[in-house]
Amino acid sequence: MNTFGRNLRLTTFGESHGPAMGGVIDGFPAGFKIDFEAIREEMAKRSPGLSALVTQRKECDTPEFLSGLTDEGITLGTPIGFIIRNSDTRSKDYSELADKFRPNHADFTYEARYGLRDHRGGGRASARETANWVVAGAIASQWLNTKGIEISSLLTGVGKISMAQKILDSLSVSPFNYQDLKLPEEFKKAMEAEILAAKESGDSVGGIVSCLITGVNAGIGNPVFDKLHSRLAQAMMTINAAKGFEYGLGMVSAEKRGSEVVDIFNSFDQVFTETNFSGGIQGGISNGMPIFFNVAFKPTPTIMHELRTIDILHNTVTLKMKGRHDPCVAVRAVPVVKAMAALVVADFLL
Amino acid sequence: MNTFGRNLRLTTFGESHGPAMGGVIDGFPAGFKIDFEAIREEMAKRSPGLSALVTQRKECDTPEFLSGLTDEGITLGTPIGFIIRNSDTRSKDYSELADKFRPNHADFTYEARYGLRDHRGGGRASARETANWVVAGAIASQWLNTKGIEISSLLTGVGKISMAQKILDSLSVSPFNYQDLKLPEEFKKAMEAEILAAKESGDSVGGIVSCLITGVNAGIGNPVFDKLHSRLAQAMMTINAAKGFEYGLGMVSAEKRGSEVVDIFNSFDQVFTETNFSGGIQGGISNGMPIFFNVAFKPTPTIMHELRTIDILHNTVTLKMKGRHDPCVAVRAVPVVKAMAALVVADFLL
Amino acid sequence: MNTFGRNLRLTTFGESHGPAMGGVIDGFPAGFKIDFEAIREEMAKRSPGLSALVTQRKECDTPEFLSGLTDEGITLGTPIGFIIRNSDTRSKDYSELADKFRPNHADFTYEARYGLRDHRGGGRASARETANWVVAGAIASQWLNTKGIEISSLLTGVGKISMAQKILDSLSVSPFNYQDLKLPEEFKKAMEAEILAAKESGDSVGGIVSCLITGVNAGIGNPVFDKLHSRLAQAMMTINAAKGFEYGLGMVSAEKRGSEVVDIFNSFDQVFTETNFSGGIQGGISNGMPIFFNVAFKPTPTIMHELRTIDILHNTVTLKMKGRHDPCVAVRAVPVVKAMAALVVADFLL
Amino acid sequence: MNTFGRNLRLTTFGESHGPAMGGVIDGFPAGFKIDFEAIREEMAKRSPGLSALVTQRKECDTPEFLSGLTDEGITLGTPIGFIIRNSDTRSKDYSELADKFRPNHADFTYEARYGLRDHRGGGRASARETANWVVAGAIASQWLNTKGIEISSLLTGVGKISMAQKILDSLSVSPFNYQDLKLPEEFKKAMEAEILAAKESGDSVGGIVSCLITGVNAGIGNPVFDKLHSRLAQAMMTINAAKGFEYGLGMVSAEKRGSEVVDIFNSFDQVFTETNFSGGIQGGISNGMPIFFNVAFKPTPTIMHELRTIDILHNTVTLKMKGRHDPCVAVRAVPVVKAMAALVVADFLL
Repeated sequence: MNTFGRNLRLTTFGESHGPAMGGVIDGFPAGFKIDFEAIREEMAKRSPGLSALVTQRKECDTPEFLSGLTDEGITLGTPIGFIIRNSDTRSKDYSELADKFRPNHADFTYEARYGLRDHRGGGRASARETANWVVAGAIASQWLNTKGIEISSLLTGVGKISMAQKILDSLSVSPFNYQDLKLPEEFKKAMEAEILAAKESGDSVGGIVSCLITGVNAGIGNPVFDKLHSRLAQAMMTINAAKGFEYGLGMVSAEKRGSEVVDIFNSFDQVFTETNFSGGIQGGISNGMPIFFNVAFKPTPTIMHELRTIDILHNTVTLKMKGRHDPCVAVRAVPVVKAMAALVVADFLL
Repeated sequence: MNTFGRNLRLTTFGESHGPAMGGVIDGFPAGFKIDFEAIREEMAKRSPGLSALVTQRKECDTPEFLSGLTDEGITLGTPIGFIIRNSDTRSKDYSELADKFRPNHADFTYEARYGLRDHRGGGRASARETANWVVAGAIASQWLNTKGIEISSLLTGVGKISMAQKILDSLSVSPFNYQDLKLPEEFKKAMEAEILAAKESGDSVGGIVSCLITGVNAGIGNPVFDKLHSRLAQAMMTINAAKGFEYGLGMVSAEKRGSEVVDIFNSFDQVFTETNFSGGIQGGISNGMPIFFNVAFKPTPTIMHELRTIDILHNTVTLKMKGRHDPCVAVRAVPVVKAMAALVVADFLL
Repeated sequence: MNTFGRNLRLTTFGESHGPAMGGVIDGFPAGFKIDFEAIREEMAKRSPGLSALVTQRKECDTPEFLSGLTDEGITLGTPIGFIIRNSDTRSKDYSELADKFRPNHADFTYEARYGLRDHRGGGRASARETANWVVAGAIASQWLNTKGIEISSLLTGVGKISMAQKILDSLSVSPFNYQDLKLPEEFKKAMEAEILAAKESGDSVGGIVSCLITGVNAGIGNPVFDKLHSRLAQAMMTINAAKGFEYGLGMVSAEKRGSEVVDIFNSFDQVFTETNFSGGIQGGISNGMPIFFNVAFKPTPTIMHELRTIDILHNTVTLKMKGRHDPCVAVRAVPVVKAMAALVVADFLL
Repeated sequence: MNTFGRNLRLTTFGESHGPAMGGVIDGFPAGFKIDFEAIREEMAKRSPGLSALVTQRKECDTPEFLSGLTDEGITLGTPIGFIIRNSDTRSKDYSELADKFRPNHADFTYEARYGLRDHRGGGRASARETANWVVAGAIASQWLNTKGIEISSLLTGVGKISMAQKILDSLSVSPFNYQDLKLPEEFKKAMEAEILAAKESGDSVGGIVSCLITGVNAGIGNPVFDKLHSRLAQAMMTINAAKGFEYGLGMVSAEKRGSEVVDIFNSFDQVFTETNFSGGIQGGISNGMPIFFNVAFKPTPTIMHELRTIDILHNTVTLKMKGRHDPCVAVRAVPVVKAMAALVVADFLL
C-alpha cells in the first residue's frame, strides 16, 4: 500500500537510488494557487547536506510537477503528479550490502517479504521516500493555512536532553500554544551538542518530535475506527524510525488519577477547556483546542561501528557501513511530521 | 467510518443504550469451525460486573450469530453477522447528561460533529462498543492459532505501579517471550490495591496494557503507508481511552544511542536477532521475532466527584455523575487489545 | 466484499434461509427524520407473494432498526443497523439441491469459490439479499428527495414486448422526462400476459428495467475511474440476473454517426441540451439533464422443467426444481434498481 | 478518484497537453521479468497516427519507468512508477475551445465540477489518458499469461456493420472460443469502409469491442457487491465514449425464455457447460468457461461540421472543430478494453 489518505490521497513510488521518486496527489481542490517557494522551504528542512547535523548527501530535491496545474500554478482538481530525480547516488558505497543484512534495517524483512530487494541506499525503505511526503504535505499545509489552521513541529528531545516534562506541565495551561513549545537557546545548543557527540563517535542518537496544530474547529474526526488520533498515530508511525506516538498527556496518563487530569469545560465567546490534557481530541473528535502530540524516533541503525550480522546465506559476517548517514534522523523527521499531520487534517476536512 | 480492516473487515453499529449492538465480519475464510466457547471466554474478560475491579453493569453479552455459518458453526465464507442485545440499561441514570457535557468525554465533540447525540451511556462513544470488537477478534484469534500464532495481552501498569522498566530490560534477551511478561503475584495485588484505592475515593486510575504476538513469520507488513506497526498503532488508538502506543523499546528509544540498541542478526535453524529492541518489526515488516507493543490508557473521566462544566447553552453548571463506572478502563481493555491485534494480523495474512 | 459505496456505505449479510439478513448503513447524515412508511412501500414492491406475477413466498420483510436513530426516528450520524428475520423458509424444498448444481445458478460457482455453500434457497446468492438494498436505498431516496432529486424505475420490457425503441426515440426530445416513460395500459397488459404465459408453461422470461433520475445538478461524478455512469454500471450489474447496462442512447450508439447524436447545448435560465442522447452524463459527470439508463435481466434459471445437470461428484443427474419461483425476476428488480441508483447518487453527493 | 483496483492498483495523472502523463502500479508481485517489447506492442495498437483510420497526432508514447524494477527489468514488489512525456501538442488548435463548450464532450461538465479546466485537447478527459491504462494492462496481461490466462479484444461492429448476432449465436456452442470471434476479411473491409466513409464526410461512427478471456479457473469473483461482471462493467464504462456493457448473451437475454438459455452442466476431465449464454460468469463468480463481454462505444463527438453550442457566458455561438480527430474511437479502444480486463482479472487473482 503506497497510497495514503481517503479524500486527499497521496500515492508514492521510488527507490532511493533508482531513476526518480515521485507521487500523485489526488482529491486536492480545484482553483488553489500553489506557493512553490513554500514547498521548497519545507523540502529544505528535510534535505540532507545542509548542516553538520545531518547526512552529507547533497540532493537538490526539487520536484518537477507534471499535471494537475495550469501554467500559472493553479490546481485543476485533477491529480497532481510530480517526480524528483535522484542524483548524487553513490551506489558503489552500498555494494557490500547486496548480500549482507544491516542490523535494525529493513534489508532482511524486505528480502523476506519480496524475495529480492534494491539494496542500494535502502531502496524503497530509505527515508529519502519522505521527500515525496513533504511535497504533498507542504501543499496541504498551504491549503490548511487558508482555513486558519497552522501546524508546527519541532525537535523537543535528543537522547537524554528533553523538553518532554516541561511540555506536559504546560498542558495544564489553557490555551496551550506555540509559546509553550518555545525552545530556549541553551536547550537547542545542548541538543546539537548531543547530536555532534554521537556523530563524532560514529554513533547515532534518538529523538522526539512534538507537533502542535491550532485552528481546527471542534467536530473533526470520525468514530469509531477513524478517530482523529488513530489516523494521526497511523500517519506518524509510517515515518521511518518512529517507535512511539502519544497525544495530549500521552503515556504519562497511565500513571494518573482521573481527578488529576480533568479538562474542565468553560465558555467565553466559544467553548474551551481550562487545561488541555486531552491534547485537543476527545472521543476521536477535535474539541477546538490546540491538538498536540509527540512522536519518538529511535537512533538510526546506520552507525560507523563494525557490527556482526549475517548474509543472505545466513553465514555470520561483519559489516562496517560506509556512505553518508544521519546521526539523528529525528532532525530530518521534523518537516515530515508536519507534512503527515497536514495530510491527515486536510483529509478530514475535504 | 465504522469499518475496520481491508481483507478481513469488521463493520460495527450500536449505541450503548439502544436496542442492540452488532457487527459484520467480512472476508473471513470458508470452512473454519468456530469455537463459540472461546468467544464467550474473551467476552467474559471484558464484561463488566464480574469483579469488584470493574463497572457493575451486568450484561450477558452473548452474541447472536445471524449469518455466514452452517448449522454446525462452520464458516461459509460469506459475511458473519451478529448482534448483542442491550439489556440492564438504566437510561434514567443518564437523564442529567442530556444537556450537560461531561469533561473529557465525547459528549461535547459528538454534539459538535453531529449536532445531536444519544446521551445515554455515551451512546456510540461508549466502551461497550468494544464488545463487538472482541467477538470478531476472538474469531480471528482462533484462526491465527491454527497458523501457529498466539496473542497475549495483559495489564502491566496501573498508576505508578508498573512493569514497564522490567519488560524493556527483558527485550535485551532473545527470544523475548511469554515468561518475560509473567506478572509476580505481589505485583498483581499491588495493581488491584491501586484500583480499589481509586475506586474508594470515587476516582479512577490509568493503566498500561502490553501485548505479545508470537509465531508471525518474517515478511508480514507492507511498505510504505501500511506498515505492520502503523496498522497496530491505528488499531490500538481506536480503543476508548488510549493515549499512547509504542512498540519494541518504544518511546525510550528516543533516549538511546544507536550502538546501545543494535539487534544483531544470527541464525540457527532460522534467522533471529540476539535482542528484540525492534519489537519484532523492522521497516514495517515482521522479522520473525515476537512482536511486542504497549498501549497507555488514561484514567476514565467518569469519576464520582462533583465537577464544574457547561451545558448545551454554554452555561456553567455542576455535574455529579451517577451510574456505574470503571475505576480502571485498562482492565477491560486487555481483551480488546488482543482482539484488535488479532484483527490486524489476520488482515495482513488473508 | 459485502460493502457498497464510499461515503455512504452499505454493508450487508445474510443467507436466504438463515436466521436473519441485515445491513449497516454508515455515513448517513445526522438529524434526518426517517419515513418508515416509505421504506415499507419500497419493500412491498419487491416483496414476493403480492401478486400472481411473482414468487409465492410470503415474507413480511419488515426491517428491525437496531441503532443509529433516536427514539423519534431521527438519524444520529452513527451507523444504522437493521435486521430482517427470515421466516416461511421451506428449507426442505431445497434438500435435493444439497448435492446437485442448478444450471445458470450460483451453486457451482459458490462451491468452486468457497468449497462449501448454503444450498437452501441459494443462500447468500439469493435475490432475497436485495431486500437489504431496498431498505438502505429507500432511506437514501428520502434524503435525495429533500435535495430535489427524484428517482423512478419501471419495467419497460418483458420478452419481446418492449418499449425500448420508443424510449430511445424520446431521447431526441428535451427535456426527456417522466412522461416519456409512461406506459400505455395495453402495453402493461401485454407484459403481464407474457409473464403469465411463461409461468403457465413452467418457464420464465427476461425483462428490461429503465431508470430515470431528475434533479441532479451538473457537476456530479469524478474522473477518471469514478465516473457517474461507471459507478451506476457497477451498481446495476450487482443485481441478481442483470446481464447488461446502457445509459443514454446506450448500445444503439454504436450504430450511429456522430452527426446524428449531437446534444446541442442551449441556455435559458440554465444550461440544457436540446436532446438527451448523452443520458444526462458527459465525461462521467452529470450535465444537469435527466439521467437515464437501462438494465437488462435474464430470465430466472429457476424453471419447472426437468433439466439435466451434474452433482457434486460430477455425475450426470436430472433435476426438477420445486419451491416457489419468479417467472420474471425483472419485476422484483424494479425497486432494487431504484434503490441502487439512490445509493450511488447519494454517495456522490455526500 | 484516479486510482483503479484494490489489490493491484493503478493510479494515474496527466492532462493531454500538459508536460507528461503517468501512472503508479501498486501491488504487482515481486520477481517478475517485464517484457518491455510487449508493452510497446500494446501501446502501438492504441497509438494515433499509425493508420488512416485514426487521428493523425503522432506520439511516440514510450513510457519511462522510474521505480519498482531492478536494472534487469525484474519487479521489486514496490510501486512501478512511469511517465509518458507529451509532445506534438498543437495547443493552438484548441484556443477557440477556451471559452466554448463542445457538444457531447466533457468541457461543460468539467467546468461545472471544478470551476475551471484545461481546455487543450480535453485536458484530463482526453482519451490520451488511456495510454496509461494500456501500460499497466500490458504488464498485468503478461503476468496473467504465465497463469494460463489469455485476453483478446477486437472490433466486432462499426455503425450498422456488426458481428453481434453471429457471436451471440456462437454462444450456443461450447467451448465458445477464439475461433468464434474470427473476423472474415470481407467483414474487416466493410468496417474499414464504414470508418473511411464517416471520415470523408467529416463525421464519426460508433462501434462495438468484444472481449474474450480464457483460462480463468472457476471460483474467481466475490459476492455480493464485487461480482466479476460488475467490476468488469465498471472498468469498461470508465473508458472514454463507452455507452453500454453486456456479458454473455447480454441485453438480448431480456427477450428470452428461461428454457431457451439453460447452460447445461456437464463434466469430462473437468466441469463445463454445454453452451455459454452465461458468458463464463454465474452469480458473479467465474465458472471456468471463457468469459465474454461486449462494450458499445458512441461515435466521437469531435466532428468537422459546424455546430451550434454555447460559450462560458452561455451565449449561443458556432464552433467548427479543428485539430486531429478519430473517426471511430472504438478502434483505439480495442487495446484499452483488453488492458482494463487484464487489470480486473489480475486484481481478483492477487
